[in-house]
Amino acid sequence: MVGAPHMDPDEFRARGHEVVEWVASYMERVGELPIAPAVEPGDVRAKLPASAPEEPEPFEALMRDLDEIVLPGITHWQSPGWFAWFPANVSPPSILAELVSAGLGAQGMIWASSPALTEIEGHVLDWLVDLLGLPEHFKTATGPGGGVIQMSASDSTHLVHVVARERADAPTDALVAYGSSQAHSSVERGAKIAGFEHVRLLGVDEDFALDPEALRRAIEQDRADGLHPAIVTSAIGTTGTGAVDPIAAVADIAQEHGLWHHVDAAWAGSAMLCEEHRDKQRGAERADSYTFNPHKWLFTNFDCNVLWVADRKPLIDTLSIHRPYLRNAASDSGEVIDYRDWHVSLGRRFRALKLWWVLRSYGAQGLRTLLREHIALAQELGRRIDDHDKLERVAPVSFALVCFRHTDGNHASDAVAAAINAEPSLFVMPSSIGDTRFVRVAIGQTRTTAADVERLWRVLDAAA
Amino acid sequence: MVGAPHMDPDEFRARGHEVVEWVASYMERVGELPIAPAVEPGDVRAKLPASAPEEPEPFEALMRDLDEIVLPGITHWQSPGWFAWFPANVSPPSILAELVSAGLGAQGMIWASSPALTEIEGHVLDWLVDLLGLPEHFKTATGPGGGVIQMSASDSTHLVHVVARERADAPTDALVAYGSSQAHSSVERGAKIAGFEHVRLLGVDEDFALDPEALRRAIEQDRADGLHPAIVTSAIGTTGTGAVDPIAAVADIAQEHGLWHHVDAAWAGSAMLCEEHRDKQRGAERADSYTFNPHKWLFTNFDCNVLWVADRKPLIDTLSIHRPYLRNAASDSGEVIDYRDWHVSLGRRFRALKLWWVLRSYGAQGLRTLLREHIALAQELGRRIDDHDKLERVAPVSFALVCFRHTDGNHASDAVAAAINAEPSLFVMPSSIGDTRFVRVAIGQTRTTAADVERLWRVLDAAA
Repeated sequence: MVGAPHMDPDEFRARGHEVVEWVASYMERVGELPIAPAVEPGDVRAKLPASAPEEPEPFEALMRDLDEIVLPGITHWQSPGWFAWFPANVSPPSILAELVSAGLGAQGMIWASSPALTEIEGHVLDWLVDLLGLPEHFKTATGPGGGVIQMSASDSTHLVHVVARERADAPTDALVAYGSSQAHSSVERGAKIAGFEHVRLLGVDEDFALDPEALRRAIEQDRADGLHPAIVTSAIGTTGTGAVDPIAAVADIAQEHGLWHHVDAAWAGSAMLCEEHRDKQRGAERADSYTFNPHKWLFTNFDCNVLWVADRKPLIDTLSIHRPYLRNAASDSGEVIDYRDWHVSLGRRFRALKLWWVLRSYGAQGLRTLLREHIALAQELGRRIDDHDKLERVAPVSFALVCFRHTDGNHASDAVAAAINAEPSLFVMPSSIGDTRFVRVAIGQTRTTAADVERLWRVLDAAA
Repeated sequence: MVGAPHMDPDEFRARGHEVVEWVASYMERVGELPIAPAVEPGDVRAKLPASAPEEPEPFEALMRDLDEIVLPGITHWQSPGWFAWFPANVSPPSILAELVSAGLGAQGMIWASSPALTEIEGHVLDWLVDLLGLPEHFKTATGPGGGVIQMSASDSTHLVHVVARERADAPTDALVAYGSSQAHSSVERGAKIAGFEHVRLLGVDEDFALDPEALRRAIEQDRADGLHPAIVTSAIGTTGTGAVDPIAAVADIAQEHGLWHHVDAAWAGSAMLCEEHRDKQRGAERADSYTFNPHKWLFTNFDCNVLWVADRKPLIDTLSIHRPYLRNAASDSGEVIDYRDWHVSLGRRFRALKLWWVLRSYGAQGLRTLLREHIALAQELGRRIDDHDKLERVAPVSFALVCFRHTDGNHASDAVAAAINAEPSLFVMPSSIGDTRFVRVAIGQTRTTAADVERLWRVLDAAA
């Protein structure tokens, strides 16, 4: 063996079992750890030596620092008391699939560089098309379209802006991208990175959903001004308050004016497994692209964002560059998907494995049960807020997101959030919309139960 | 517990131990598996059910399909007989760090969302600045610059093209990006995705290194034509043949003409741990950005690409967009790094953990020993080729890459590659440069030894 400093498989076994124990023990105790670490900027770095070690360190030192440096310095997203931002929920089968994927160390830039990696990805994303009630043409097997795993919804949203830019065939200083004032930062950011000069963040209705008439007026005005409207993003579940844009109305306008229509269901896409929520995405079957994050609310480790396109040709035309060392018979045959042509990255790891394992371990019914329970917990919390003298919702309860304020105003709302976050095992995000401060409660951590929401309620009721 | 279909920690322990055994056993037997799977397009998909299961499947079914569907369908990048493309070498501590990172499920979009994730990343990349002999101003601690982990070198190269575009403040149809004809596809692709109208892939010398005079002439011509030269990428170790561009000469020209200078050391950057190779990167201390992939040749699982910038301000200015739900005291203080402003993605997982574990487990000396042994094996193979009647190198042996042809021409060269690849436990890449077909042998898989290169030699000697 070269140099021979590698752990041999037997030592890997022994250390692997230690690490599995550590992770299992972390699962057991994460609920008792303070979610937000008590560290100041620089505290963690101050514990690290100034330079890398010249000599190997024993494995015990790595494990010790997990407990002494990492755990006290990290934010515990997997605590059942997690109600901040959106969840990034993980699950045992997903964690173990990450271990397998790391052990295989396969790289799927093209079909030929790991066929099973590519085919399982395409197949599992086709399964999800059915599970989410999306159209057949989103499938790689039957489509002109298809699905691909990307790192994050920001990557997918950036990418469709690039494709829309290329399709528009107009100078970038004439291109216009649209979304609502409540669109995720990735819309403005993706458009800017893609070189769009103009991004219009449009008005919303009283529930913070995009006003389609504002969209139509903006497009007509931009046309009249000699600009080139190129793409509109509509959201199913905004990050701010979970607002649902009128997808079908946006689809009509996009079709009428020849815009690319991108649907951002990053968080709420998971809820589409449950048929009773599909009215929220009516019109998405006419979208040019649709993105959602199994790594938010589908028990699948980050990173696992899905992008579907209705037609893969403009995507591939935009991204494909050929080099002799990537030539192979399978690619030349046109019978395979080469995912390097579907994203900015060339290399890619086997991320579909964890999604495959999650779908199979829980089954579609198991996932629906979990999602429905999170949503029921949010509905119940919303009812309690509605019944409370000093609290009021700032937006409708959306899927599993509840946004509310204190009736005494911003200071009181921030005080409620601070009181909750003073409890080490609870974590919520204070936010604002316009001049209104509010508290955002996102339910969806893997092991959150009614008891955790009850703990949250007791603290916020007392603080209110 | 909600729905209660989750594996409890004890079942996770039991299943985790099974998976560790499976990965250890894979390490033991990967050398005996046929590296390139005997599958045709669609074979893997044909083994998968048409739709996702409604009911949960037992864990045994997942493990069974690893053996029956995944292993026969995947390409075995971790075989010691791997000489194709570049390596994507992994190591036991890196694999175990991926398990820990998956178990923690922490998300580091901003410092406040997981301080240890951000600070360990910044610190370990500062360690690497010293280990690679790069300048102090590349460090986040002492910067104005700093390092960040991205998914792949393609992402980093795309990103610096975006930053150069923004810095140039000229219409995109006037912007020009430069590289050599041997530059990685990510240069042309990154420039195209960033909206560059003009990409010049310039002439090379007899060793396939960029001709600086060709660069100078192209810039002057473009200037004269009213265009705006914005960025040049130089390579330390091209993908085609491992060519090393004259970094210092490119740095001079970039400074003189105000171009952003990006250094692509994706593969060969690892070799800079060894001082005897640093002459190859002389001039990189004046670069605006530098990228290398620990996930290629530094025993760290994909994804782990590093991008350093000499000044982080233009990067952050290009990418930052603020939203109320991301506001926090630490960010407002300006004392912390918020890595969301350093890449297209917003979310990010704890990838620094595996790099930290690799550097500590091997120690800098251990890594240098391994890299030097790979390089020595390549030098020895190069000597044998030079001494062979029917074989000749098409380029100098570069670090651990050997490119050679059969003196009887293209057909004979392809026959040599085919003979090697007919051995199930060996895998090389046939390629071409201009009209010349050749065989590319990249040494660097974690467990490749002199015996593996000897096996390769016997087959190719017999075939030649």
